[in-house]
Amino acid sequence: MDKAGSKRREGLIEKDLRKARRVAVIGGHQPDQESLDIAYETGRRLAESEAILICGGLTGVMEAAARGAKEAGGLTIGILPGTNPEEANPFIDLGLATGLGFNRNSMVVLNAGSVIAIDGEYGTLNEIAFARIYNKKVIGIKTWNIEGIITASSAKEAVELALSAETK
Amino acid sequence: MDKAGSKRREGLIEKDLRKARRVAVIGGHQPDQESLDIAYETGRRLAESEAILICGGLTGVMEAAARGAKEAGGLTIGILPGTNPEEANPFIDLGLATGLGFNRNSMVVLNAGSVIAIDGEYGTLNEIAFARIYNKKVIGIKTWNIEGIITASSAKEAVELALSAETK
Amino acid sequence: MDKAGSKRREGLIEKDLRKARRVAVIGGHQPDQESLDIAYETGRRLAESEAILICGGLTGVMEAAARGAKEAGGLTIGILPGTNPEEANPFIDLGLATGLGFNRNSMVVLNAGSVIAIDGEYGTLNEIAFARIYNKKVIGIKTWNIEGIITASSAKEAVELALSAETK
Amino acid sequence: MDKAGSKRREGLIEKDLRKARRVAVIGGHQPDQESLDIAYETGRRLAESEAILICGGLTGVMEAAARGAKEAGGLTIGILPGTNPEEANPFIDLGLATGLGFNRNSMVVLNAGSVIAIDGEYGTLNEIAFARIYNKKVIGIKTWNIEGIITASSAKEAVELALSAETK
Repeated sequence: MDKAGSKRREGLIEKDLRKARRVAVIGGHQPDQESLDIAYETGRRLAESEAILICGGLTGVMEAAARGAKEAGGLTIGILPGTNPEEANPFIDLGLATGLGFNRNSMVVLNAGSVIAIDGEYGTLNEIAFARIYNKKVIGIKTWNIEGIITASSAKEAVELALSAETK
Repeated sequence: MDKAGSKRREGLIEKDLRKARRVAVIGGHQPDQESLDIAYETGRRLAESEAILICGGLTGVMEAAARGAKEAGGLTIGILPGTNPEEANPFIDLGLATGLGFNRNSMVVLNAGSVIAIDGEYGTLNEIAFARIYNKKVIGIKTWNIEGIITASSAKEAVELALSAETK
Repeated sequence: MDKAGSKRREGLIEKDLRKARRVAVIGGHQPDQESLDIAYETGRRLAESEAILICGGLTGVMEAAARGAKEAGGLTIGILPGTNPEEANPFIDLGLATGLGFNRNSMVVLNAGSVIAIDGEYGTLNEIAFARIYNKKVIGIKTWNIEGIITASSAKEAVELALSAETK
Repeated sequence: MDKAGSKRREGLIEKDLRKARRVAVIGGHQPDQESLDIAYETGRRLAESEAILICGGLTGVMEAAARGAKEAGGLTIGILPGTNPEEANPFIDLGLATGLGFNRNSMVVLNAGSVIAIDGEYGTLNEIAFARIYNKKVIGIKTWNIEGIITASSAKEAVELALSAETK
C-alpha cells in the first residue's frame, strides 16, 4: 500500500461507514489478463473514491478487484458461498460466510448501490439479473450483452458511471 | 379435466413418483396472450407426457402452465417466495413455501431435469442463469436470447426438447 | 404396502392435495430403536389420517417416519439440504433439493400445519425454534424439553394432537 | 465516543481486520432493562477487547450491544433479514441485507467465533441451535437453559468466556 493508500485507510474508519457508497464488482472466476487488469483498476479507483468494495470473495475478477481496492487503502467485503469466513481471498478485509452456495449471489448485489460486471459466465449473469430485479444500476465491461446493462469501455468510465447516479 | 386427464391422474400416484421426469416452466408475470397460450399448452403436453411440472407457483406463465398441466391430469408443484403455502395459484397441487423471496428461484430449476422458459423479464433471466449454473438444459420460447439456451418455436417442440435429453 | 395402503394411495391424488393436512416429522439422525419405532408409527398413523408427511428427507427419524407413511399408502415430501433431489431416502415420494444446507430447516416446518419432534439434537432444536417462530404447534416425544412444546407419550397421541388443532 | 474509544477506532482499520476476533451477540427484541444493560456492557467490553461485534442488526439486545460497542470505538456488523442495508439500527457500522427473513439467523452465528446470548425468545433459541450445529461456543446470560450453553452471570464473565477459547 502506498502512502496515499495508508492515509486513506487511516481516515476510512473514522468516517461514518454507513455513509460510504458501496459498489459490487462481479465477474468470472477465470478471466483473461485484460479482464483481470480492468478488475484491478476498478477496485483501485473505487477505493480512491472512498467506496466500499462488495464482491463474492473468491478468485478471478473478485480477487483482482479486491487486490486493487486493498492496495489503494479501501475496504473490501466478500460475501462467500461457504460456511467459513476464512475462505475469502487474501485481499478481503471482511469475509462473510453465508452457507448458501450460489444463493449468496443475491446478497452481493443487494448490498451495493450499483454493480460493475467484468467478464463472467452464468454466475455473473445470475448476479446481473438479481441486480436488475432489485433495481440496481449495472455497468458492464466485456461481459454479457443484456438489455438493462450500461456498457463501459474502461475501468475509469465504469467507476464514474457506478458512482454518478448514486449518492449512497 | 377430461376423461383422459382423470385416468392419467388416477394412475399418477400408483407410479413411482421418484421416477417421474420433472420439468420446470419459468416465465413472465404479465406475458401477452400468445405467451400464455404457449405456457398453457406446454403444461398440458408435460402432463400428457407424465412429467411433473415445477414452477414458481404464482401468476402469468407459471399459472397458465399449471392450469394446462392440471387440466390434463398432471401433478403441479409451486416453489413459492413467501412463507404461506396457500399463496400458490389455484392450479398448483403442492405449494411449497420457502420464505426466501427471489432466492427461491434457484430451487425452481434445481428440482427439474430441464427448464422451459417462456417470455419473462429479469426474474426469468435469473432462473435461466441458475439453470445453466446447475447444468440444466434450458429451452426458450419468446424469451431472453442468451448463449446456452436452445430455442423452440412451439410448445410441442419445447416439450419434446425438454424431455428428449433427459431420462429422469 | 398392504391392501388398505394401496387403496389409500389410489384415492390420494384424486382428492384435492391442497386440502390435505400436512404434518412435519423432525428428529435425530441416529436415534435409538425406540425412537425409530415411534417415528415409524407416527408416519404410519399420519398416512392413515390422510395427512401428507413433510420431513428433511434424510436418515434416522426422517427415514423411519417416511417408511411408515409410505407403507401405509401416504404421500411423503423430503426437503433436502443439498442440490440433488435424489439424495432423499428411499421412502420419499418427492425429494426437493434446496442447496441451502441447514438453512433448509425453516422450510420443513413452514410447509406443515403442525410439527412432531422425536428425539433429536441441535438440528431438531433449530427446527423446533423455527416452528415456534412461525407459530406452528409443536408436539414432542423424547425430545428437547422446551417451553412451547406439547409433550406426547406415544405416536398415537402425537398424531392426534398434531391433527386436532389444525384443519389444514 | 470517549478518547480511548476514538483512539481504538483510529487504530482499528490499520490492523488486519481478518485477524480480529468476531463475537456474535444475540437476544430478544424486547428485553427488560437489566438485559439491555448487560447487552450494552457486553458490546462495550467486546470493543475494548478489539473484537468485532456481529449481530442481527435490529432492536433490543442487538441494538444495545451495538451501541455499547460503537461508543467504545468498536466495529459493528448487522446481518439483516430484509433487502435494505439501511434498516440497521443506528449503531451498526456495516448493515448487510440478506433478503432471507429469519433464515438470516444462521449467518449471524456462522460469522462469529463464539456467541453470547442474552435474554431472547424463539429467534434466539434458533440462533443458539444454529451456533451449536456449527460447533460455536455459546455463552448465555438470562436466556434459554439448554444443554451446550455455558452460563455466565455478568457481561464481564461472558466476554471473557467468549474470547478465551477462541483465538480467531
